[in-house]
Amino acid sequence: MNKVQNTATATLENLYRIFTVSETSDSTLGVIDQEISANLADFLRTRIVAQEKNLADIEEDFSTATIPEQPQFVSDYTEFLLEKLVAQSVHTTAPGFIGHMAAPLPYFMLPLSKIMIALNQNLVKIETSKAFTPLERQVLAMLHQLVYQRDEPYYQQWMHDRNHSLGAFCSGGTIANVTALWAARNQLFAATEDFAGITNLGLSAAMQQRGYRGLAVLISRRGHYSFGKAIDLLGIGRDNLIAIDTDEHYRIDTEQLRQRCKQLQGAGIKVMAIIGIAGTTETGNIDPLDTLADIAEEYGCHYHVDAAWGGPTLFSDTYRPLLKGIERADSVTIDAHKQLYVPMGAGMVLFKNNTALDHIEHHAEYIIRRGSKDLGSHTLEGSRPGMAMLVHAGFFIIGRRGYEILIDNNIEKTKQFAAMIEQHPDFELIVKPELNILAYRFVPAAVQLSLLLPGRERRETINNELDQITRTLQKSQRAAGKSFVSRTSLNPSKYQGDKIAVFRVVLANPLTNTEHLQAILVEQRTLARSAELAPQMAKLEELTQTGDEPDPTLR
Amino acid sequence: MNKVQNTATATLENLYRIFTVSETSDSTLGVIDQEISANLADFLRTRIVAQEKNLADIEEDFSTATIPEQPQFVSDYTEFLLEKLVAQSVHTTAPGFIGHMAAPLPYFMLPLSKIMIALNQNLVKIETSKAFTPLERQVLAMLHQLVYQRDEPYYQQWMHDRNHSLGAFCSGGTIANVTALWAARNQLFAATEDFAGITNLGLSAAMQQRGYRGLAVLISRRGHYSFGKAIDLLGIGRDNLIAIDTDEHYRIDTEQLRQRCKQLQGAGIKVMAIIGIAGTTETGNIDPLDTLADIAEEYGCHYHVDAAWGGPTLFSDTYRPLLKGIERADSVTIDAHKQLYVPMGAGMVLFKNNTALDHIEHHAEYIIRRGSKDLGSHTLEGSRPGMAMLVHAGFFIIGRRGYEILIDNNIEKTKQFAAMIEQHPDFELIVKPELNILAYRFVPAAVQLSLLLPGRERRETINNELDQITRTLQKSQRAAGKSFVSRTSLNPSKYQGDKIAVFRVVLANPLTNTEHLQAILVEQRTLARSAELAPQMAKLEELTQTGDEPDPTLR
Repeated sequence: MNKVQNTATATLENLYRIFTVSETSDSTLGVIDQEISANLADFLRTRIVAQEKNLADIEEDFSTATIPEQPQFVSDYTEFLLEKLVAQSVHTTAPGFIGHMAAPLPYFMLPLSKIMIALNQNLVKIETSKAFTPLERQVLAMLHQLVYQRDEPYYQQWMHDRNHSLGAFCSGGTIANVTALWAARNQLFAATEDFAGITNLGLSAAMQQRGYRGLAVLISRRGHYSFGKAIDLLGIGRDNLIAIDTDEHYRIDTEQLRQRCKQLQGAGIKVMAIIGIAGTTETGNIDPLDTLADIAEEYGCHYHVDAAWGGPTLFSDTYRPLLKGIERADSVTIDAHKQLYVPMGAGMVLFKNNTALDHIEHHAEYIIRRGSKDLGSHTLEGSRPGMAMLVHAGFFIIGRRGYEILIDNNIEKTKQFAAMIEQHPDFELIVKPELNILAYRFVPAAVQLSLLLPGRERRETINNELDQITRTLQKSQRAAGKSFVSRTSLNPSKYQGDKIAVFRVVLANPLTNTEHLQAILVEQRTLARSAELAPQMAKLEELTQTGDEPDPTLR
Repeated sequence: MNKVQNTATATLENLYRIFTVSETSDSTLGVIDQEISANLADFLRTRIVAQEKNLADIEEDFSTATIPEQPQFVSDYTEFLLEKLVAQSVHTTAPGFIGHMAAPLPYFMLPLSKIMIALNQNLVKIETSKAFTPLERQVLAMLHQLVYQRDEPYYQQWMHDRNHSLGAFCSGGTIANVTALWAARNQLFAATEDFAGITNLGLSAAMQQRGYRGLAVLISRRGHYSFGKAIDLLGIGRDNLIAIDTDEHYRIDTEQLRQRCKQLQGAGIKVMAIIGIAGTTETGNIDPLDTLADIAEEYGCHYHVDAAWGGPTLFSDTYRPLLKGIERADSVTIDAHKQLYVPMGAGMVLFKNNTALDHIEHHAEYIIRRGSKDLGSHTLEGSRPGMAMLVHAGFFIIGRRGYEILIDNNIEKTKQFAAMIEQHPDFELIVKPELNILAYRFVPAAVQLSLLLPGRERRETINNELDQITRTLQKSQRAAGKSFVSRTSLNPSKYQGDKIAVFRVVLANPLTNTEHLQAILVEQRTLARSAELAPQMAKLEELTQTGDEPDPTLR
């Protein structure tokens, strides 16, 4: 239908058309466009096939390496896409999908995204973004104020200042974290009277000039893997990203951190940065940010807080105190495509000091000239889309109070789910939620008792069987397509640091309710009785046929 | 209108609604949504105000730093957005806007983008992207084949291989270039029997272990500024990004490059990488890629080609030979949001060797596990949107032949424009186009003769006046809002390397025709006679009142 408008013959005339015509409402693509506008949730529910197709089969649909010689009708391509791609994508925001850090999108994000893409501005310079530049600066200032609470005159002075930047808008938290450590490294080795600075001379020269025997960045064992990439990229080396143990709540052990800093300093190794986490990726915990600020001050190092996940908790009057001390951080990462409910591809890093980004400032001849207001002079990335517009829309349409309600509701629901798991005889809560993340596993009631019996060896054997069950259950549930929890490994203090596989749950979807949560537990319990898991279940039963007394050292 | 659906009071019920309802066709946002679908070009033409508003005035509309406490009606927000943001954005793709590297979007990109955003997949891992993962791998393989021309069995073996990656999809060319040099650096200092590798130990240790006195990356003076960021980020230092002079066509002087490599080697400085450019940002020239490959082989270093702009020239049977030698590059950057006509935020880096990305490979406990097919284990970025879908759509809907026509047409049109400039008495062509970029300036006919007279001092005085005229003309033309050329500084051999300001033209819009180009020259000539430029024009006239003979050494 309506193929005349398309380009199935490659001629200049036909190509002109695809840059001038628009799809009409009766074309395949037009129908889909309207379907999304009419009801996003319905589109996702009906167009994504629930049953999982084998990956190898999907790969076959995307396996020719040659770019087709001739053009294809838009409608034919759209039909291919619906059947082979859309149907086989993941409904990450279904209410029963509680394993991802993917947020569902408020309906207005779709048409607003379309405006953003239609305008196709490039935020690297004002010449290709005009009003988007002040808008992005405002978004950075608003989030800066949420974190640092500076007064209005401060923002009136710096928000639109041509030589400074309160932060950098990025494609995501990884680039934000990289930017923070890049600025920290360059500030540490800034130019002095007798040294032209690391920017010009590089890290080896900088280390020699300062006489450091090494550099170190310290973070808890629960730190995000992006810091491993960052420290590799920056030339510092992964061995110098020092992992500090956590306490029983997966928060950094500040005593160990302090000891380690002292030890490093004694060995001539400069502590470049300490990283605190506000919302660990796997367990949703918050480091003692205030104490970390004290330690960073003590050692005169950069203090970065990775609040990619937990940052928006600052919207909540009830839970904001959990992040006390974040306002003392030199830099803070917050992802917009997580708890600000913005589509994929938006993160920010904010700096306490409006001159911090000077250390990575750069210019060129044809754009981002010195003294221009071009945003590109303070970002790692070059050409960038106007995603800040969607953050701006969220701030205005949802409002501080709206975000607060969402945050509070998510945390309270997670606490309810934790209670449901604790009350259920066949599940074991592994991570009690501090924010809206928790971890648990399936452990038949009798086995839970056996885990309390003395004898490390038997406990390990049981945990090994349980690990297999957790892995299989998670896979089967994903394959069944009704719901989804993710999976990771943790070493809870309860089992003296033994590594166990667990289900990880992230509750960020306001549409997830207790019935969805109940259904997930029911489904897991049913799947555990499947033929596939019979050997493990039998083995477990065997292992629990003992009459010993529980180990008093375990709780 | 239709405010009931919105959230102007923050309650949980109202918040549920914004995650479940959709805009109806009579809402402000719904109307805009349909307007874009009905005719993108009309939307841009009517919604963007042509006349430039003062930036300070625009900033006032984006100046409060406090996130609003209460929510706002979607319709009210949309009205604000249309008036304050959309109206004051830049119509980068109007046919008369020939100064940006922004490509206009074929109509189907809009509804397809909406599908992509509605699905909101996260390409970091298969669990949140499923079919998007093989799709992205296919897109990388297709572009890999365009560059490297390996045979089909090669792609069948490696395209979907879980332990390898033919390239990395990025937010843009900057991240692509950074990724290429990161992989190159880590490969140079890979782990050996007695060295744990730069990834683990860092750059200082690596340099000591190898006994290098320094590291260097060589590129022509016309290299993109992203390499300055990359070399800073990687800890190598900007002084070690060595700029090689170019010949009269802005192509790297390979003799000087060879000399410099030899000299560096003699001084114990390791040449880490040589970078060739396929489409210099400011002049659109292509380095002699084959000779660069020879030199890189000779010095055993990584060879990267930045084809962010010029890569798609490979689609053209006529112009592909200009890039001969690109297939010998170890890595190649190509931007999709430039000449692949995809919206902002899509670049790629491809690697000749399918193990090259192993050097930056990384894993985590909860995703991108070893042996998984998760794309995130070989990318600098973490969470990423499914932009590859839009590249895929372009490949299939436009086809190789369609892209060829677009490329050929753009280059031929640029040659026509060059001829128009050369034939016009009052303009001077500064960069003759090799691809679809050229540079020129306004120089009244009499002044052109005077520039050929002997005496460097007078020539410099004239050029200074001309520079002011060029700057003012470019600004006035931009402010008038009808058309746009960009501006940069070049040092053409014609004027013995004196730096002059020029207009820079990029012809990537198939809708730009010779009438648009003619109108731009007419407008510039008219603007040159404005009162604002009267002093400069008078000064020029004065300077040309001489009867000397032209300097025979200048052409």
